[in-house]
Amino acid sequence: MKFEAKKLKEIIQKIFVHAGASEENASIIANALVLAELRGIPSHGVIRIKDYLMLVRNNRMVLNPNITIVHETPSTALVDGGNGPGMVIGTFAMKVAMQKAKEAGSGWVSVRNSNHFGIAAYYTLMAAEQDMIGFAMTNGNPLVPPTFGLDRLLGTNPIAMSIPSNSEGTFTADFATTPIPRGKFEIMEKTGKKAPWGVLQDAEGNITDDPSILRRGGAILPLGGDYEHAGYKGYALAAMVDILSAVLSGANFGPYVPPQVAYLPLRNDLPGMGLGHFFGALRLDAFRPADEIKSYMDMWIRTFRNSKAMKDKKVLIPGDPEVEKQAKNEVEGIIILPEIWNEMFTELQAWGLTEKDLL
Amino acid sequence: MKFEAKKLKEIIQKIFVHAGASEENASIIANALVLAELRGIPSHGVIRIKDYLMLVRNNRMVLNPNITIVHETPSTALVDGGNGPGMVIGTFAMKVAMQKAKEAGSGWVSVRNSNHFGIAAYYTLMAAEQDMIGFAMTNGNPLVPPTFGLDRLLGTNPIAMSIPSNSEGTFTADFATTPIPRGKFEIMEKTGKKAPWGVLQDAEGNITDDPSILRRGGAILPLGGDYEHAGYKGYALAAMVDILSAVLSGANFGPYVPPQVAYLPLRNDLPGMGLGHFFGALRLDAFRPADEIKSYMDMWIRTFRNSKAMKDKKVLIPGDPEVEKQAKNEVEGIIILPEIWNEMFTELQAWGLTEKDLL
Repeated sequence: MKFEAKKLKEIIQKIFVHAGASEENASIIANALVLAELRGIPSHGVIRIKDYLMLVRNNRMVLNPNITIVHETPSTALVDGGNGPGMVIGTFAMKVAMQKAKEAGSGWVSVRNSNHFGIAAYYTLMAAEQDMIGFAMTNGNPLVPPTFGLDRLLGTNPIAMSIPSNSEGTFTADFATTPIPRGKFEIMEKTGKKAPWGVLQDAEGNITDDPSILRRGGAILPLGGDYEHAGYKGYALAAMVDILSAVLSGANFGPYVPPQVAYLPLRNDLPGMGLGHFFGALRLDAFRPADEIKSYMDMWIRTFRNSKAMKDKKVLIPGDPEVEKQAKNEVEGIIILPEIWNEMFTELQAWGLTEKDLL
Repeated sequence: MKFEAKKLKEIIQKIFVHAGASEENASIIANALVLAELRGIPSHGVIRIKDYLMLVRNNRMVLNPNITIVHETPSTALVDGGNGPGMVIGTFAMKVAMQKAKEAGSGWVSVRNSNHFGIAAYYTLMAAEQDMIGFAMTNGNPLVPPTFGLDRLLGTNPIAMSIPSNSEGTFTADFATTPIPRGKFEIMEKTGKKAPWGVLQDAEGNITDDPSILRRGGAILPLGGDYEHAGYKGYALAAMVDILSAVLSGANFGPYVPPQVAYLPLRNDLPGMGLGHFFGALRLDAFRPADEIKSYMDMWIRTFRNSKAMKDKKVLIPGDPEVEKQAKNEVEGIIILPEIWNEMFTELQAWGLTEKDLL
């Protein structure tokens, strides 16, 4: 299936309005999912619709949450997301951070009682558009053991930062703190390929290149890999994200993060509320005139882009591949795999929606 | 040589006062270097004294800088370090960040015109003592190529974060964004050992385990390693540190960071001023009551510490190894290797100081 971005947005918005979301909330969800598809990150796009709706249908998420600012100072806020969709809550929280940055130079918002928020760059790009540096991070379902550990205690806990330049585009780092996403190991297994050495461990903690190990007590290591390759730094980084997202806010941390799919049961010993995020906005001209910083950023980007590269390679700026895909997909349309499209309808059926209602 | 921490501080302070530093500045430098020795990071301790003094003797650093706040908002500041010692400037900047956090909930300071600042944890621990989360990062001399690149464009650009708990100690992540420090490869080379696979590349960008490659056009890869192992995430992380430290402030970025040793010449095409740092302080009670957060942090730490570990291993909390070493060294004393001690005196000679003057 191939869609224009605008058409895909309309379809997703229609789905969530039908499910009970306000026009505004449905529009935010649609924007965030479509941006993920445009930027070539389908794991955070249409494939999530069925998961979100199943959570709603099982009374594990609400579509129109009561989002509140629990506490605030001139440059910080604690937001309770009322157990709504992560992107509705995240957009609210990022706007609070940006408003505070306007008034106090910077804004930092820790969020509890939220859910999966899509791609982190969705929020950091909002800030970059207004001459701010945007930061976003979130904890997630536990998949990753700490260094020397066997229990899965941390999510893939992504970190994102965007900063605009004058003429060289926006620098956007947006990365999980694990080397390789879970989905890629499934593909390796299906195609009979080995995983790169050093990113997986078996149930006893030995390094393995067998991707099927994830179904047999194994785990994905944090960025860096094992102790010898400094994976403890990736563990520290994932821990920092977990602490800023959950310990500051009172969300569930590490192993307690509630599953973002309804077919996995909720634990009954949750110490916190929902899943946690952390957002930040730093106004450029809270340091130097924005134009000065943005033209220095031009120079930074050009220096890296024009540096010497390996044979047949070029040095990329974080965000380059996503920007390229977005430009292409905006012209050529977004491809949704038939299995993802059809799987979505198995859930939409429960809501009384058929393909005919949407196309 | 073995010293009580207190005695070593006195010696270092005497050296820098003799070299012209104010009592206060000499005391800050001594505190930071001794903390590095206590925490088992001698690469940032006494070994640096000769480097700092040589920079001063070559008119490339001043010991009593004129530090100024160039611009500020309620929660941010741009600090010009007046080309002083990084720890004098860093202490000033961290105090500005903490004062702003007291008043506005958070404080964020980008610094230019500075030099090597010692261990990043020195600053983040200052914040943790006052019930704040402390952040510190710095750029550094270029050693690391971006992914697919052959030019060394980034430093080992460390990131640190500290957060206190009630009864389980302080969580302190403090790590370079490269897997292994340069000095360890020199030791591998001298002892005829191979480097772990995946952390070094040769002059053409091929992975190698030959530590001598660093003297023959090779380079240390960013955290993660090569592209296949997601080294581009380590590259993005080092780039984020460089941008927050130098692009925001107007310090020299990436390849332009001035050498922190006087035997390497200064480039004459510097686009910025000195070396850059970035500091942050987030007041805990700008989110929730500090006690609530600290006891949740206790639970976080206990959950990780008590989780299932590999055979004969235990799961550590970031900062544990350093805290353990500090406790030991505070009781047993700090060992300074004779070659480091003697090398220091080759520089002190130029300042008319002998061992007799100091002991």
